[in-house]
Amino acid sequence: MSTTENAVEPRTAPKPQPMRVSRSGRKPILAVTLGDAAGVGPELCLHLLNRVAEEELPYHVAVIGDIEILLRVSAEMDRDFRPHVLVREEFEETEEKAKLFKQHGSFVIDTPWLKDKNVEPGCVQKTCGKAAGEFIRYAVEGVLAGTFDGILTAPINKESLHLGGFNFPGHTEMLASLAGVSGEEAMLLFSEKISVGFATLHTALFNACAQLRSEEIVRVGLLMNRTLERLYSRPVRLGVLALNPHAGESGLFGREEIEIIQPAIAALEREGVMADGPLVPDAAFVPNVLHRFDGFLCMYHDQGSIPFKMLSFDEGVNLTMGLPFIRTSPDHGTAFDIAWQGIASPSSFFAAADLAGRLMRSDEN
Amino acid sequence: MSTTENAVEPRTAPKPQPMRVSRSGRKPILAVTLGDAAGVGPELCLHLLNRVAEEELPYHVAVIGDIEILLRVSAEMDRDFRPHVLVREEFEETEEKAKLFKQHGSFVIDTPWLKDKNVEPGCVQKTCGKAAGEFIRYAVEGVLAGTFDGILTAPINKESLHLGGFNFPGHTEMLASLAGVSGEEAMLLFSEKISVGFATLHTALFNACAQLRSEEIVRVGLLMNRTLERLYSRPVRLGVLALNPHAGESGLFGREEIEIIQPAIAALEREGVMADGPLVPDAAFVPNVLHRFDGFLCMYHDQGSIPFKMLSFDEGVNLTMGLPFIRTSPDHGTAFDIAWQGIASPSSFFAAADLAGRLMRSDEN
Repeated sequence: MSTTENAVEPRTAPKPQPMRVSRSGRKPILAVTLGDAAGVGPELCLHLLNRVAEEELPYHVAVIGDIEILLRVSAEMDRDFRPHVLVREEFEETEEKAKLFKQHGSFVIDTPWLKDKNVEPGCVQKTCGKAAGEFIRYAVEGVLAGTFDGILTAPINKESLHLGGFNFPGHTEMLASLAGVSGEEAMLLFSEKISVGFATLHTALFNACAQLRSEEIVRVGLLMNRTLERLYSRPVRLGVLALNPHAGESGLFGREEIEIIQPAIAALEREGVMADGPLVPDAAFVPNVLHRFDGFLCMYHDQGSIPFKMLSFDEGVNLTMGLPFIRTSPDHGTAFDIAWQGIASPSSFFAAADLAGRLMRSDEN
Repeated sequence: MSTTENAVEPRTAPKPQPMRVSRSGRKPILAVTLGDAAGVGPELCLHLLNRVAEEELPYHVAVIGDIEILLRVSAEMDRDFRPHVLVREEFEETEEKAKLFKQHGSFVIDTPWLKDKNVEPGCVQKTCGKAAGEFIRYAVEGVLAGTFDGILTAPINKESLHLGGFNFPGHTEMLASLAGVSGEEAMLLFSEKISVGFATLHTALFNACAQLRSEEIVRVGLLMNRTLERLYSRPVRLGVLALNPHAGESGLFGREEIEIIQPAIAALEREGVMADGPLVPDAAFVPNVLHRFDGFLCMYHDQGSIPFKMLSFDEGVNLTMGLPFIRTSPDHGTAFDIAWQGIASPSSFFAAADLAGRLMRSDEN
């Protein structure tokens, strides 16, 4: 695989191709990028490989990383991790691969980017950033070519990534750019208890208020509706939050509800989305209201992330909507302070893998 | 009682007087205003009177209201409510009152404002607003004169209150005005799980961002520190929230943390307050962080009220800090839609009574 005749050029990638391999009757394959090798990515990948060996999952796992790093990290840790199948980058024989998958459920794609490099845990390194970026690029090429059916990304470090020559603020923007859909992506925080999307995100709260637009509420609402419908295989109901306390009290505490949010809700309804609101923010996330909605469309970062993190503990998943493929990630960072010690919880990583698994399966239907 | 020689003029009231009666060895007396008679106030008062009759509480209850309304509401409801002692406004004999208190734990102060009035449940009525305002005035005069030791207010309706001639946005402002401390008050939302105060409150989110000031953070922080220390009888720790997502990421998402919040925290520390922050908002309310703080000082309404309502269900209490007396109220409104039906939960009202009870007792020490 790698950059073979199947690979497409970044930024000129076509919209979702037919998921060739997943439709052939086999289990879908989840590409898992190792992330920043100095963080908790390697141990999370080892946990997931171990899990695949121990229980029957509805998807195969292909870790895109480096076998020496994985073996080194597993040696540094107390537990006995044994990745079952190691496949070098040049490994291409499809039949043999299929046999190995059937036998073991997973394999590791050993790539060249960390070979003979001096990787240390817990610190920013250009080598790790460069490799992390290449893992992502490799995964995107593979999923666009139909070799993989979805991507789970282990955490990266922004600073390392920049040093390594990838000038993106984070995963999401890099994935959108590689897929040629920059500006069409949006983040969904998902857990079994609550899912939240955002009309504004990484900006000062003052700017979030100033920049709130009906168009963006509608765009994200449509993405949420599509994603959640696919996930639950039924029509879903969205709760659209107000911006202001008490939902503005009829304009007394701000007019965004009247001028921006209500028109957006009306537009979503015209598109066939079941959207209720503007919901009084502090009444939306209480137990007897929470279950009424499959997803909450929030007006700013903390409005959604405060209740999400309170309810989801370490089982939250980050899902990128608007990409031409499935992509999830855990709801935490590289955790440099505890890297390679084997104490990082894999809960969120497992939840992210399983969510991708659910979506990949619904692809086949 | 009522406007006797002990009463003081509104707005010229002195700062906290010695709690004369409560220091005489008897239990403190909690004045309970009936609120808007068309709302759930009457049934909440009946529930509380019943509770006093059934269990030994560390405080006495004096409901300031109207006995005909209470009997009428108890007749409308399915349950058998029997307020034990009825005392007309002119009832003044102290010894007999003390005997009755000892015998029953509670009494009802029957006032003239709703007599021969046609009160209907669930709607805005000038009569009810006028009476609600007079109940409050009566309670404030009594507590400032030392007859009562604290005030619990049942919900009022803003519109009725205005119609009744009391031009205040709500309880808090009216109480502060009657006590002559307008502008010195602040709201604390309290429950056993979480307590929150606010640097900005009932205003559009955009204005809250624009109006955030160090001075107000310090003022509210000092009030919270004093109130919570009194409640817990030990030094307390405050968590001061950031305004922006990720606490601004060192200025990348807003500079309020650097320019406004950090200086306020430093000022609080100079005053001997244990204040930590600015806390990353979506990481502050998760289970393993929550217990580290006795109170959270939030930068805007929903930042505090979203987690508060999620955690407190119907046991949240509203406490007014900065008044020269103790005042609590339930964390809900008049609930006109279910008034007089006996289905309103008294949980928050009971919690508000008990919180006042704890604070009145600490007054005696």
